[in-house]
Amino acid sequence: MIKNKKYEESIKLHKKHGGKLEVISKVPLKNKNDLSLAYTPGVAGVCEAIAKNPKLARELTIKKNTVAIVSDGSAILGLGNLGPLASIPVMEGKAAIFKNFGGVDAFPICVDTQDTEEIIKLVKQIAPVFGGINLEDISAPRCFEVEERLRRELDIPVMHDDQWGAATVGLSALINALKLAKIKKENVKVVVAGVGSAGVATGRLLHAYGITNTIFCDSKGIINKKRTDLTKEKKELLKGSTLKERTGTLADALIDMDVFIGLSKPGTLTEEMIKSMGPKPILFTLANPTPEIMPEAAHKAGAFIVATGRSDYPNQINNSLVFPNAFKAMLDYQIPQFKNEIFTTIAVALANVVKKLNKENIIPSMFDKKAGIAVYKAVASLAKK
Amino acid sequence: MIKNKKYEESIKLHKKHGGKLEVISKVPLKNKNDLSLAYTPGVAGVCEAIAKNPKLARELTIKKNTVAIVSDGSAILGLGNLGPLASIPVMEGKAAIFKNFGGVDAFPICVDTQDTEEIIKLVKQIAPVFGGINLEDISAPRCFEVEERLRRELDIPVMHDDQWGAATVGLSALINALKLAKIKKENVKVVVAGVGSAGVATGRLLHAYGITNTIFCDSKGIINKKRTDLTKEKKELLKGSTLKERTGTLADALIDMDVFIGLSKPGTLTEEMIKSMGPKPILFTLANPTPEIMPEAAHKAGAFIVATGRSDYPNQINNSLVFPNAFKAMLDYQIPQFKNEIFTTIAVALANVVKKLNKENIIPSMFDKKAGIAVYKAVASLAKK
Repeated sequence: MIKNKKYEESIKLHKKHGGKLEVISKVPLKNKNDLSLAYTPGVAGVCEAIAKNPKLARELTIKKNTVAIVSDGSAILGLGNLGPLASIPVMEGKAAIFKNFGGVDAFPICVDTQDTEEIIKLVKQIAPVFGGINLEDISAPRCFEVEERLRRELDIPVMHDDQWGAATVGLSALINALKLAKIKKENVKVVVAGVGSAGVATGRLLHAYGITNTIFCDSKGIINKKRTDLTKEKKELLKGSTLKERTGTLADALIDMDVFIGLSKPGTLTEEMIKSMGPKPILFTLANPTPEIMPEAAHKAGAFIVATGRSDYPNQINNSLVFPNAFKAMLDYQIPQFKNEIFTTIAVALANVVKKLNKENIIPSMFDKKAGIAVYKAVASLAKK
Repeated sequence: MIKNKKYEESIKLHKKHGGKLEVISKVPLKNKNDLSLAYTPGVAGVCEAIAKNPKLARELTIKKNTVAIVSDGSAILGLGNLGPLASIPVMEGKAAIFKNFGGVDAFPICVDTQDTEEIIKLVKQIAPVFGGINLEDISAPRCFEVEERLRRELDIPVMHDDQWGAATVGLSALINALKLAKIKKENVKVVVAGVGSAGVATGRLLHAYGITNTIFCDSKGIINKKRTDLTKEKKELLKGSTLKERTGTLADALIDMDVFIGLSKPGTLTEEMIKSMGPKPILFTLANPTPEIMPEAAHKAGAFIVATGRSDYPNQINNSLVFPNAFKAMLDYQIPQFKNEIFTTIAVALANVVKKLNKENIIPSMFDKKAGIAVYKAVASLAKK
């Protein structure tokens, strides 16, 4: 009912404005002289300069500060495969956040194909005008191939936010949760439930950060050596873990573990399971909009810390903390490509932004300006190295 | 020297701003409630509404008012094939004009392929987010195939501005020139020199408007039945003309003719040729930036009226008079596709905007707000029919 009211209000807002973005000129066009500089004949000088030295496109055109938000609409929010037209409102929202929180100009490219090779080809063909590519809401496992290939084949940074946004903010919140629980990263034992785009990236970042006592569960249970149905990504996660021998269900996995990171669906986590965990269960129930277990029930079962993807509970794991300023720094410093080190560095920096650390305050709000600055500086610090 | 100064000044302007466009949000993002409507969770309602009824994308997203400016950089201004990166400044300039003169949001898509089929495929794949496609600076003859196919295969309007912009404004100026020369359209005899993108479209519009005493010349001379090297477009123009038997050079073509429309290159028209024309030579020397003959020389040779593409002489044939408001009306009235009748109707309406008609004032300035309104109303009037 509340959801429907929010939906109605949002539809009304979108209808009133006819979409959320507009493309405006930064230069005046009031008279012939203005036009002769912004357009012909003056602009020919800019074209010729770039033709002679293509690097100048990053100084003289919007390539300097513009990111494409590319989606095929195959995994829109928690709604599934609704196609490119229905993905536009989300991509517009991201573009608005890019601008308001990071000063980055972003434009939605919602593509009418869900073929991996065609998406890769298309993004490469439209790349000239962009300084970076934010992939969005592309379903697993295609998203891995699309991102990996584009990172290799393009000379601008490429990031699938569904993977790295959630993973980075999750790691950041976990760093603070471990401070409160007084557990060292070398010792902490983590279960990740859900090995889609965000689950794989979370695993990769945990391992890159040095958290390797990890168990990953998909819909068939614990990922282990005996299984013959593992994707390339799942095999890689298993290889990076110290807990290779475990088998069974998610319930089996959680016994005596410290941390549950859910990137799965409502109902995945039960009170029973929480009770079977170690003394201070840290629960990141990130299924959206309905978490794996509701925070009230989680606390009743003895949770030490609960984080969700929701803005109406404490500890929101919010992708939007990362992408605007991460891309802004990538653009400003012309860093050629994203890599794990960038995300782990951001996670540490974001964690340090929280000054009054407590169980209901383990991660900054996206409205905290210090958070954006910390993300930007973290990326910039790597550029300077 | 002056050109170089303009070039330098333009480069400085582009450097200062880092390109000319920015993408901003029309909705506020100041607090959690704003975000919950512009983004999750509220936006999910908009996505679902569009998934159920795809037509709503034209009410609830930027598809309502956004045009892609697509170029492969193969024919940038008069500079030639400089590729997609070097085309960005021109496409940004067009986008700025789209917004400032027509209220249309436009975004540059500069594509890294010059293969006709690949361009067609790519534009179809990125079409979901756009309400129209402005093709730009794509070289002939590929531009004809690209436009024709996209018009057939997409459900949004597609226009190659290098063709229809110049042709429409040219026809408009010609309508007024003929009033001053007191020649009826049924009787006027026109030579078109240059049968590239703008030349072909000019021929098509002349014929659609009822001016059929036409001779077309390319670099090999008069287009006539005996030639075996004619493209599909050139054959079509010849078929629409009453002067099918003429052969020879441009100089041969011009003898006793009333109008010269040059879409070719500097030096194409000589004083001798002008002197061989009818009593009131009407000369549209539209090669840019240097016309087929300079206006001073044209007048010395007896020109009745001279128009150029330049802003520093009277009678500027300026594409920008048409595209911003033509697209705006196409979007607002959701007209499915451009056709010749739209352009001839615009041409007549634009001609009627000129109130103090004289030899140095046959076409309105793009800064004359009545011009934009006239273009918009002309297209709207066809929608209402």
